Amino acid sequence: MDLIVQKYGGSSLADAQKIKNVAGRIARAKDAGNRVVAVVSAMGDSTDELIELASQVSASPDRRELDVLLSTGELRSCALVAMTLMSLGHKAISLSGAQAGIRTDAQFGMAKIAGLDPQRITDELDKDKIVVVAGFQGITPGMDTTTLGRGASDLTAIALAAGLDASRCEVFTDVEGIYTADPRLVPSAIKLDEISFEEMLELASYGAKMNPRSIELGMVYDTPILVASSFSDVPGTLIHGDPDMNRNVGEIRNRVSGIATDINVAKVTVQGVTDRPGIAAGLFEPLAADGISVDVIVQNASAGGKTDLTFTVKRDALARAEGVVRRVAESMDSDDVVTSLGLAKVSIVGTGMQDAPGYAGTMFRALADAGINIEMITTSEIRITCIVSEDQVGAAARALHTAFDLDSPR
Amino acid sequence: MDLIVQKYGGSSLADAQKIKNVAGRIARAKDAGNRVVAVVSAMGDSTDELIELASQVSASPDRRELDVLLSTGELRSCALVAMTLMSLGHKAISLSGAQAGIRTDAQFGMAKIAGLDPQRITDELDKDKIVVVAGFQGITPGMDTTTLGRGASDLTAIALAAGLDASRCEVFTDVEGIYTADPRLVPSAIKLDEISFEEMLELASYGAKMNPRSIELGMVYDTPILVASSFSDVPGTLIHGDPDMNRNVGEIRNRVSGIATDINVAKVTVQGVTDRPGIAAGLFEPLAADGISVDVIVQNASAGGKTDLTFTVKRDALARAEGVVRRVAESMDSDDVVTSLGLAKVSIVGTGMQDAPGYAGTMFRALADAGINIEMITTSEIRITCIVSEDQVGAAARALHTAFDLDSPR
Repeated sequence: MDLIVQKYGGSSLADAQKIKNVAGRIARAKDAGNRVVAVVSAMGDSTDELIELASQVSASPDRRELDVLLSTGELRSCALVAMTLMSLGHKAISLSGAQAGIRTDAQFGMAKIAGLDPQRITDELDKDKIVVVAGFQGITPGMDTTTLGRGASDLTAIALAAGLDASRCEVFTDVEGIYTADPRLVPSAIKLDEISFEEMLELASYGAKMNPRSIELGMVYDTPILVASSFSDVPGTLIHGDPDMNRNVGEIRNRVSGIATDINVAKVTVQGVTDRPGIAAGLFEPLAADGISVDVIVQNASAGGKTDLTFTVKRDALARAEGVVRRVAESMDSDDVVTSLGLAKVSIVGTGMQDAPGYAGTMFRALADAGINIEMITTSEIRITCIVSEDQVGAAARALHTAFDLDSPR
Repeated sequence: MDLIVQKYGGSSLADAQKIKNVAGRIARAKDAGNRVVAVVSAMGDSTDELIELASQVSASPDRRELDVLLSTGELRSCALVAMTLMSLGHKAISLSGAQAGIRTDAQFGMAKIAGLDPQRITDELDKDKIVVVAGFQGITPGMDTTTLGRGASDLTAIALAAGLDASRCEVFTDVEGIYTADPRLVPSAIKLDEISFEEMLELASYGAKMNPRSIELGMVYDTPILVASSFSDVPGTLIHGDPDMNRNVGEIRNRVSGIATDINVAKVTVQGVTDRPGIAAGLFEPLAADGISVDVIVQNASAGGKTDLTFTVKRDALARAEGVVRRVAESMDSDDVVTSLGLAKVSIVGTGMQDAPGYAGTMFRALADAGINIEMITTSEIRITCIVSEDQVGAAARALHTAFDLDSPR
C-alpha cells in the first residue's frame, strides 16, 4: 500500500465549499487504496488578516506570540478538513505540528525543522485513518509553538513525505503545474510533465510559487513532488531527481526547460571606485549587516585603477540599500552612486546546458534580434540570466521561448 | 507579593482597541506589585462563528475536531494580549491550556479538569512575566486538545487560582457585578458588594452569566471570586465563603439576597395517571435517556387513584420532551398530555432562609397582592421558586424585590 502525502494551499481552502472539495479529493486518494497524509495551509487570506490584527495591537509584535497567533490558522483548517472527511464516512484525525512530531529550533517566525518523530502519524495511519496535519508549524524542545516561514506548508509536506518514506508528495495549488514560462507573459507557455529538482530550483522565482527550501528538501531526500491544481483534474508537473528524463526519446533533447522571469529588480551602481583589495567586502558586509539580500553582482574589469560595481536588490529594499551604499561609497572615493528601479530578470534554465556550448550565444542573439538591450549578465551552471528593462521583459521571454523551441509540445 | 488570577470574557476582547484596554488593566494589576495570571476567552462572537463554519462542512461535527477548532479562538486571544502587554513594556508570555498544565479527561466538548501541573506558569511568573493563559481548554493524557464547555474560561481561571493558591480570582465581564435582581426587569435592582458561594449558585441563572461549575470550584477551594466590569472601574461583587458576612452589622440582616428570574421555561403535564409505584421512573428514565434535562417536577397528591404529574424543561427541549412523554403516557393510561410554553421562573434566594420561617408566606402574599397567579412551586434550602406566566415575570420580580426590602442599599 502506497503512502501519499498531499498538501493543499490556502486558496484551495478559502471557504466551506472549497474545504468540501479538498476533502473529496483527499478521500479519492484514500479510496484508491493509499495511506494518505494531508497537510493543509490556513484558509484563504486568514494569515494576512492575523498579521494585520497583530499590527493593530503592537508596532512590532513579539515573534513567539506572533507564531502562536499565526499557527491557529492551520489548526482551524486541519480540524475542518478532518471533520469534513468524517462526514463523508471516512476515518480521519487532525494533528497539530506538535502532535505530528515536527520538532524545530526556537527561531520563531522562521524555525528550522530539527527532527521528525512521526510515531503518532504512523499509529493513526495504522488505524486506517486519514491524517490531516497543520502545515507551517512545529514545536521547540521547550514545548513552544513555532512557524517555519511564509509558504512553508510545502516544507511540512515534503519533510513528512521524506520522513515517512512516502511514494510521493502531491502539492495542490491554484496553478496546474510548472510551465515553460510565465503564461501571463508568454501565451504559448506549455505545462511541463516533469522537471528536475535542479531546474525547479532555478525556476522557483515564478509560477508555482514553491518554497525553494521545499524543493531542496525534496532533492536531498529524493522525494518526487507532484505540483497540480486543486481545482481541476488536469495532470500536473512531477518534480523529481531522475537525471535521464524520458522526454523526447529518440530526438535531440531540448536542453532549455523553461524561461524564468522576475520583475522585482532594482539596481545600484557605485561608479569610479578605486580598484584595490577589500573594496567588495567593504560594500557588501554593511549591506548584509542591515539584512539586505543582494542578488546579481557584476564588477567590470577595471581600467585606470577605477572600476564600476553594480548589484541588484528587491525593489522594496532599494531605499535602504542606497542609504548604506552612499555612506560607504564616500570612504571608497567613489565618483557617484546611481540607482535604477525599472528592471527585470529573464533567465533560461536547463540541466542540459552544463555540458553543451552555444546557449549563451543563442540567448544574446535572440534578445538582440528582438531589439532588447542587455544591462547585466550573470550565470550559474544550469542558468543564464540577463537584466533587461522591465517594459521589455515580456518581449524577451517570448523571444527566448521561441528561440529555444519551447512553443510547441515536446 | 500577592498572586492574582484575572479572567476576561469575549465581549471584553472583541477588537484591537478592547484588547489594548484589557492589557492596560492587566498591566495595572502588575504595576500594583502583584504576580498576575490572566485567563482570556475567544474574541467577541468568534466561537459562535467557528461553530457556524463547522456546521457548514459537517451536519454533526466530530467532537474531537470541534475542540481543536474552537480552542484556536482562545489561543488567538492569549497571543494578542501577550504581544499587547509587551508593546506596553511589560514582560509577558502566552500559554495554551496544555502549556499551562491543565490536564483533562477525554470527554471532548465538556472535558473535566483531571489535574493541574502549573510548573510552567510558576517558572514564567518567577521570571517576572505576566502569564496569559488560553481559557476553556486543556489536554488529555494522549496529548489531544479538549474544551471544557461553553463559558468555561471562568472554570480555567478559578482552577488556576485554586491550584496556584492565589489571593483571589477576578472575573471581568460586561456587567458590573451581581445584582439583587435582573436590572432589565427590576430597575431598582442594586449591585451587591458581596455574596456567598451558596447564594451565587442559586442566583447563577441570571446576570453575571457565571458558570455554576466555576462557583462550585471556588467554593470547594475557598477561592474568593470578584465579579466586575472590564469597561469601568466600579467595584464589583465579591463571591466568597465567609459564613458571617459583614453586611448590616448591628441591624437585622435581610436574609433574601436576590431575586432570580428565568424565562426559558416550558411545562409538560401528564394528566390522570394511575397512581402506582414506578410511574415517575417510567416517565423520567426515558427523558434522561434522550438527554433531556428536567428542571422543576411537581406531582399533586392523588385523588381517586389518579394523579397529575407536571415538569418543566428548557423551551428548545419541549418538542422532544413531548414526543417522549406521549409515547410513555399511553402505557400509563394517562387521560391526556398538556404542554405550555409561555412560562417563567421567579425565585427568592438567601442563605438566611434556611433557619428562619415566614419567607414562603411573604413571597406568596406579595405575588397575590400583585395579581400574579402561581402555577407551580418548588424549593431548596436557600431558595423558593414559583412558576408564573411569562408576561408577569417582571411584575413578580419587582413585587418581590420590594417585599424583601431590596430596593434601597443595605
